[in-house]
Amino acid sequence: MGTAQKDSSLQAWRDLPAVAGNGLLDRRAFLRHGAVLAAAASGYVVSKSARADALADDPWSKAPGSVSKPYQQPSRFEERAGRTLSNPNGEPRNSHARTPHHMLNGMITPNGLHFTIIHAGTPDIDPDKHKLVIHGLVKRPLVFTLDALARYPMVSRMTFVECGGNSAPMFSNEPIQASVQALHGLASCAEWSGVRLATLLEETGVDPKAKWMVAEGADAPHLSRSVPLSKGLDDAMIALYQNGERLMPGNGYPMRLLLPGWEGNMNVKWLRRIKLVEEPAMSYYETRTYSQILPGGKAYRFYFLQEVKSFITQPSFGLALQGPGFYEISGIAYSGNGRISRVMVSADGGKSWAEAALQDPVLPKAFTRFRAPWNWNGGPAVLQSRAWDEAGNVQPTRAQFVAARGETRKPPNVLGFPNQHYNSLTSWAIDAKGEVKHVYV
Amino acid sequence: MGTAQKDSSLQAWRDLPAVAGNGLLDRRAFLRHGAVLAAAASGYVVSKSARADALADDPWSKAPGSVSKPYQQPSRFEERAGRTLSNPNGEPRNSHARTPHHMLNGMITPNGLHFTIIHAGTPDIDPDKHKLVIHGLVKRPLVFTLDALARYPMVSRMTFVECGGNSAPMFSNEPIQASVQALHGLASCAEWSGVRLATLLEETGVDPKAKWMVAEGADAPHLSRSVPLSKGLDDAMIALYQNGERLMPGNGYPMRLLLPGWEGNMNVKWLRRIKLVEEPAMSYYETRTYSQILPGGKAYRFYFLQEVKSFITQPSFGLALQGPGFYEISGIAYSGNGRISRVMVSADGGKSWAEAALQDPVLPKAFTRFRAPWNWNGGPAVLQSRAWDEAGNVQPTRAQFVAARGETRKPPNVLGFPNQHYNSLTSWAIDAKGEVKHVYV
Repeated sequence: MGTAQKDSSLQAWRDLPAVAGNGLLDRRAFLRHGAVLAAAASGYVVSKSARADALADDPWSKAPGSVSKPYQQPSRFEERAGRTLSNPNGEPRNSHARTPHHMLNGMITPNGLHFTIIHAGTPDIDPDKHKLVIHGLVKRPLVFTLDALARYPMVSRMTFVECGGNSAPMFSNEPIQASVQALHGLASCAEWSGVRLATLLEETGVDPKAKWMVAEGADAPHLSRSVPLSKGLDDAMIALYQNGERLMPGNGYPMRLLLPGWEGNMNVKWLRRIKLVEEPAMSYYETRTYSQILPGGKAYRFYFLQEVKSFITQPSFGLALQGPGFYEISGIAYSGNGRISRVMVSADGGKSWAEAALQDPVLPKAFTRFRAPWNWNGGPAVLQSRAWDEAGNVQPTRAQFVAARGETRKPPNVLGFPNQHYNSLTSWAIDAKGEVKHVYV
Repeated sequence: MGTAQKDSSLQAWRDLPAVAGNGLLDRRAFLRHGAVLAAAASGYVVSKSARADALADDPWSKAPGSVSKPYQQPSRFEERAGRTLSNPNGEPRNSHARTPHHMLNGMITPNGLHFTIIHAGTPDIDPDKHKLVIHGLVKRPLVFTLDALARYPMVSRMTFVECGGNSAPMFSNEPIQASVQALHGLASCAEWSGVRLATLLEETGVDPKAKWMVAEGADAPHLSRSVPLSKGLDDAMIALYQNGERLMPGNGYPMRLLLPGWEGNMNVKWLRRIKLVEEPAMSYYETRTYSQILPGGKAYRFYFLQEVKSFITQPSFGLALQGPGFYEISGIAYSGNGRISRVMVSADGGKSWAEAALQDPVLPKAFTRFRAPWNWNGGPAVLQSRAWDEAGNVQPTRAQFVAARGETRKPPNVLGFPNQHYNSLTSWAIDAKGEVKHVYV
């Protein structure tokens, strides 16, 4: 590569018209082949001898490689893209494993990196012995083995699951300097397949007095949550497959309750029973941990929905820019209310906005990858994204959010904030060196 | 479970009208809540004491479970759902690892189970040292590191990759008794993200004389294939991510050529260069292994497209039915030409057909999961599926296929047939015991 050189002629991007402040380009630039994206970025022009150097055989081209395994694993060079663990030694408390969104792309979270929160370790369940009981205010209590469930019609849907406590560090009154993985890594998106709960409730019949159902897991704490029966009869699923294969143990193997768009903790893992009842059970997690505390000291009694939200994953904290020029701003948007209808991106801290391109397919209650073309001029910039959903909801500004929901002065630790359901904006400030900081605007 | 009993009253399905022979039901039954799917299948009614038995704590409910890991793995009980390996000891020949479609559901293949064919083991590539060179008939030869590629606009798409040799055992003149994994396991579907090759060719510029490109891998054999430049300027991608994370080593880490809908071998893995040329290189794999041999002894010179195809994954060989009653017939359909427009299912060996439901989203050049409701009366049945694509192509019958493309009398071994691109029907015969055999109809 001795004669390789940065091609300083590749600067046509400088002439592209911006549609918002600080160099944001029209998203339709992505659709144009030719002058716009040509010469946008940073390939290196090489001479013939440099080309020969680049094509010289590396060690892996000179000898046979490794043997295929029944279940393939990521490259050893991707250990940097692992989930971060809040409790790596398995102490007797809960354990968070966060998805590294800054290292990922697309809308699917691979199963190895799907986030998990587990309250007493991952149970090692024998699927041939596990059973699901549906009882309480039903006409016929029934028990279902996995073999029994395999006889029912299945459905698949791509949907996100997000912990109610995702983004809790954003309740701090000072912006915490942490990656998008640390701030927003408790949300993931997969294709789930299984049996609609409504199908099983047709089997059991429903007593008209039933208004709620209590879902309970087979983990040691028997985590349980109350769910309005209307959700159970709507799009709830007994999920058996995650991105095609059986659920990961940390995601509820061999079965979990899936409540698309609702707080992660309610999507009870290792599901062993659903009891139909008249009133909510007021169980531990619905009355304590996942309560929604308001500024006046009051709290919402229930807060099920994961509301419209977005954040930029690239560039983001920890991913420094490598000099001025073209960059793609990329991130994730989602809403528990349905499809994302629009994402706007700002490079000047919200003074002006450009519409981002939404990657197909845009599916209800699923991650939507958004992308916006950007020419960084090398000066200070503040990147933000803001999402809308098809129900007309818009992600609140931080000022709006804090006024309604408060913030916290003294965090007990860097990631543990006693509040839930943050869905306001995330702002990344770029300095002249290209370093990215988390800021409030 | 001592007092649990099969609920013999749950036989309402017997009264459902069939829309095709041998008990195939209208797919719209899936949309109806009530009498149709209620009482369709096989939950077990339980008494109160049996319910208590079913809810007695198993060992995994009595003690803390295991500690979360950065990259989570399937349950040890799912080892049965691994890829089958043709060369588990890494002998000096190629290695197939086949996707267990009969154990999966949905449209996404999880990365651990994506099929691979590898000709000299999996190279262990350092992504910081790997480079992609684009040269030959271009205006500016360029070299791209992974950091350079990260500067370009990205795209994501869900698309299948299928080996040209997938389903080769179907060329046998006798139906081989093997699972859908053994017969059709060399096709998988993932969400791929990366940079459009057209974007990079805008950077290099294209000499008008260029009509083909030769793509070459960094594996020890430097596997290379010629691809018409028109495909490179159409939907070809330099894929960097697979279901969100960096490519699996067996699928080309850190980058591969992705040619949606075209023969798997052309989607060159561990991609290190693309050379634009006037004529195809006639490399080893395009002139020998993946030639398409015709009955008269001639061969197609090139055969790039993976044509419209479908097969039933459940029930299938190795998955015996457990008594008469309701079953969902489920399978996969796909076409290199675009979206699947229709799948028909037969339970009487093709005498009559019912339309299957297509699971959303139905995406171009991607797996589409189809489902059809079926009441098995306990008698002999032959299950088949047949797919159409939006370009108007239909999966050929076996008679049509064999007339055009031939079959082989003496297979060299159970899975090694010297022919490619089988896309005709697969037929599963059910006997009175519920056992499934592979048959030709």
